[in-house]
This record gives sequence, C-alpha cells and structure tokens, in this order.
Amino acid sequence: MAKILMGPTTHIYPMPTLLIGANVDGKPNFMAVAWGDIANAEPPMISVAIRLSRHTHKGISQNLTFSANIPSVDLVRETDYCGIASGAKVDKVAACQFKVFYGKLGSAPLIEQCPINLECRVVHTLELGSHSLFVGQIEETHISESCLTDGKLDANKIKPVVYMGEPSRQYHAVGEALGKAFRIGQELKVKE
Amino acid sequence: MAKILMGPTTHIYPMPTLLIGANVDGKPNFMAVAWGDIANAEPPMISVAIRLSRHTHKGISQNLTFSANIPSVDLVRETDYCGIASGAKVDKVAACQFKVFYGKLGSAPLIEQCPINLECRVVHTLELGSHSLFVGQIEETHISESCLTDGKLDANKIKPVVYMGEPSRQYHAVGEALGKAFRIGQELKVKE
Repeated sequence: MAKILMGPTTHIYPMPTLLIGANVDGKPNFMAVAWGDIANAEPPMISVAIRLSRHTHKGISQNLTFSANIPSVDLVRETDYCGIASGAKVDKVAACQFKVFYGKLGSAPLIEQCPINLECRVVHTLELGSHSLFVGQIEETHISESCLTDGKLDANKIKPVVYMGEPSRQYHAVGEALGKAFRIGQELKVKE
Repeated sequence: MAKILMGPTTHIYPMPTLLIGANVDGKPNFMAVAWGDIANAEPPMISVAIRLSRHTHKGISQNLTFSANIPSVDLVRETDYCGIASGAKVDKVAACQFKVFYGKLGSAPLIEQCPINLECRVVHTLELGSHSLFVGQIEETHISESCLTDGKLDANKIKPVVYMGEPSRQYHAVGEALGKAFRIGQELKVKE
C-alpha cells in the first residue's frame, strides 16, 4: 500500500465533541472542544487543549477549575455555536438556552441538558505553543437519569457526537456496533 | 432533568481508537489506546495516556519516540487483540500480520495497513498516577493513497473506529452525518 507524506499535521480520527465550561469573570461560558480525552485512571483525570486566545482559557486560568459536558446529538447545533461564538462578545448560555448548575467545586459551570457532566480541578498546565494543555482531576460525575437503565449508566442512551476533523469538519452520530472490546480480538490468539 | 452523582469517573464519550507503536528492546510493538488526542496545533502535538505497567510504556521511555496509527474498521479485531495481548509475551506484529515500516524518526514503528500514521517525538511526560501522559510532537504524517480523492485526504475514506467506554466497551463505526462544524451553529446567531 503506497503512502504519501503530509508533514506534521493534527490528523487524528475520530475525536470526541465536548463542551468545556468555565466561569469567566464570574459568568458561565462554554466552548466546543474536540481535543480532550481521559489522561489517567487512578485518580481519574482528563486533558483538554485550549487555544491561548480563547475566553474559556481566561476562565480556567482564573479559577483553576473547568467542566467537561458531553452533548448528545440533539444539542449538535448549540455545540457548534459554542465553537463559533466568543463569550467575550455574547452570552452563549442565553443563546443556547442552557440550564446551568454548579456542583462540588462551585466554580465549574455544568449544563443540565448534557447527559454527562464532569467537574475538574486543574492539577497540571503544559504550555505547548498555540494551546495550553490543562490536566484536570475529575472530582465529580453527574449523569442524567434518562441515561440510566435499572439504575446503572447505559452508554447506548448517551448518543454523543463524533467529530471528524480536517478536511471534512463534520459531526456524526455513533454508527453500527462492530464488536466488544477485550473480546473480539481473542480470535487472533490462535495465531500467536 | 434529574441528575445522579457517580463520584470521580473516566466517563468520556466517544473516544478514538488508536494503535500506539513503539520499539521495545529494538522490536516493534503496538497497543490499542482510547486515551489519546491532539494536544496542540502549532506545532502539532498529541497526548497519549499509557499505564506504567505496559510493554509499550517501556518502549516509549527507551526511545522517546512513538507512533499513532489510526486503524480502519476492517482492522478492528487486530486492534482489539493489541489491547488484550502483551508484547512482553507474544509477537503482536506476527499475530496481526502487520506490515511494519519506519519513517523520519527511525525508531517509531508504523503499520502499513493503517490509513494514517503519525510519527511522534516525546517533548513532555507527566506522571499522573496509574498512567504517564506522553506529549509527542508530530514530526511526520503518512497517509495511504487509498484515502485520497484528487490527491487530497478524504476523511470519508478513513473509516476509523469509535470507542464507547464503560460500561458498554463497544467498538462502533462512524454513523450518519449531523452537519458541518463552524456552520450549523450559525443558526443560533439570531438568538444573540
């Protein structure tokens, strides 16, 4: 299979679609972020890359707390809007009609309509160039009751948004199931 | 909408599915990783969380280089196998019939069958507890010619694997398109 070289790029597929929240000058603000993922298991941590110029960057730096809210597919327009508009100019919470609440940390705004909300306390900040990589310890998880089955989280009810980056820049639903992790690969054990 | 509390968790959805490669004691090895994403734009960087006990952790520490290979859906069994088996005990490259090649860095093994391969040089390592968060500067991108349309990368041809974590632990294809990023949110501008 022939390959071509493209130099240094940011071509990772797929990516999550998150709404990162922070209080900026005391007011809740949210931005859409595809560059964020779990960074540690024990204790649970998340990393998010935020461009230095963003209003959210200012808020995270002020409070050293932030939230990661997972939007479901019915919030894809609001989510995209939070990636286009700047909280320095408009009130995104009002435009999106987000119901905001606070949890354990008190300063990390959470979106009620998002099925999952993580409250995070910054424990490391790496200055990488265009972006700061904030590593947050996850202090609390809020789950909408509508995502539970028999009292337990049911991942099939979350309906999160998949982001495919450059050049398509397209949001997608999660598609057909391909198999169970830690199980379908067992078939290859015979080839060891 | 009522919420329940689950304490600190690693509940991010969806996640990417990556094959992280490293030479360990001079031999190529790969592991499946869902905890990795872009960390910086200029210059391009990626972060990946690797459990301290993993064979791949040893290899990244030895060379301070690694690769991120994006498997397509037809490699989902091989990918899962690379998340189950340990390179300390078996030759995963042989079991998966991966064709391995090297690029600019010389020590980051790349999988020819994966449509995208990123060569990364470690520039930061954060010790977070159970995992090290390796931040790698992306030095080169290799793209399979089969993913090009008119000489340019066509994201629709990559067919990457979406990972939904606990409790479903299920691999998925990318589903239906929901809309263009930086565009569909424009509708909410009228509500500002």
